[in-house]
Amino acid sequence: MSLPPIYIALIHYPVLNKKGDIVTTSVTNFDIHDLARTSKTYGIQTCYLVTPSPAQKNMINHIKGYWREGFGSNYNPDRKEAFENIEHSESLQQSCLTIEKKHGMFPILLATSAQRGEKSISFSDLKPELEKSKQPHLILFGTGWGLSPEVMKLADKVVEPIYGPTDYNHLPVRAAVAIILDRLLGV
Amino acid sequence: MSLPPIYIALIHYPVLNKKGDIVTTSVTNFDIHDLARTSKTYGIQTCYLVTPSPAQKNMINHIKGYWREGFGSNYNPDRKEAFENIEHSESLQQSCLTIEKKHGMFPILLATSAQRGEKSISFSDLKPELEKSKQPHLILFGTGWGLSPEVMKLADKVVEPIYGPTDYNHLPVRAAVAIILDRLLGV
Repeated sequence: MSLPPIYIALIHYPVLNKKGDIVTTSVTNFDIHDLARTSKTYGIQTCYLVTPSPAQKNMINHIKGYWREGFGSNYNPDRKEAFENIEHSESLQQSCLTIEKKHGMFPILLATSAQRGEKSISFSDLKPELEKSKQPHLILFGTGWGLSPEVMKLADKVVEPIYGPTDYNHLPVRAAVAIILDRLLGV
Repeated sequence: MSLPPIYIALIHYPVLNKKGDIVTTSVTNFDIHDLARTSKTYGIQTCYLVTPSPAQKNMINHIKGYWREGFGSNYNPDRKEAFENIEHSESLQQSCLTIEKKHGMFPILLATSAQRGEKSISFSDLKPELEKSKQPHLILFGTGWGLSPEVMKLADKVVEPIYGPTDYNHLPVRAAVAIILDRLLGV
C-alpha cells in the first residue's frame, strides 16, 4: 500500500459551542497525548494543534518540551517518539501553507463530522482514492460541538459519520481520530 | 448482524507497571468518559471499571452520579445516556459472576495485548465467531503497562495487536478500545 503524505489537525478555532456560536476551545492535555500516539501508530506526518491563543501555544510547547527533552524523554522514550509529530499551528490556513511549502502542493482537505452532508464520502470510496493519490491530505477534526460552517465550506470532502450497531453517535474526538485513521490506514 | 451480549472491562488491578510488578493503577476521569461514549456507540452491555480500591469506587460513583443525576444530566443528556453503561466492579471475577447471573452462561474472556501470543486470534477470524455465538463475551483491556500474566492465563483468546502502517504500537487504551470495538462491531 503506497500512501500520499497524510496530516491531521485538531481545530480549537473556529469551532461551535453547544449553542452554535463560534468559539475557541481549550487545548486538552489528554488530546495531545492520545493524538500523538495514535498519529505515530498510523504514520501521520504531523498532527497540528490549531489555536490562535498565545497562552495555549505556550502550553502545547511546554508539554511537548517535557516529553521531547525533559524528564519524560528518559522516563518514556515511546512517548518521546510520539511527540515528534505534534506541532502547534496558528490557524488552518497556516497548516495548509506549511504543507504546501513542504510538498509543493496544497493539501486536499478532508473534514470529519457526526452528520452526513452533500460532500460526504464513504470509507470504502475514500480508501482507494487515498491509496492512488500523490497529493498531501489534511484530515480535520473539530473540538467542542464540531467544525464551524466556514471550515466545512473549505473542505474538499467530508468523511462519513462513524456508526456502530446503534444510533448513538457522540464519540469522543480521541476515539473518532483513532477509528477514522484505522479505517483509512489500518493494515 | 446478530450479536451475543458484549461487555468490556477496564482493569486497574492486576496490571503491570513499567518494571513488570503487579500494581493497582488509578482510575482516570478521561477513561470513564471516553469508554462510556465509545461503549454506547458500539452497543456494549456494560463497561466495568475494575478496581478493588474503595476510594476509587467512590470516585467512579461520584462522577457517574454527576452525569446521571446531577448538573451534567441536564447540561448534556447524551453524556447521561452514555453513563448508563458504566459500572464499578471489585474484580474480574465479580464482573464474570454478574454476567453469568444475568445470562445463565459464563462469559468468553477475550484479552487484549500489544504483543502476539499463543492464544492470539485475528480480527478476521474473531468477527464471524462472534456473530454466530450465543454466549456473552467480556473483552479485557489493561491500564498501566498491560494485563497481568494471571489475567492473560484466564483469557480464552487474545485479540491480535493493532498495527497501522508503522511498527509503533503504543496506542492509548482509549484509542485501543475504540479501534477494537470498531473492527469487531463497526457497520
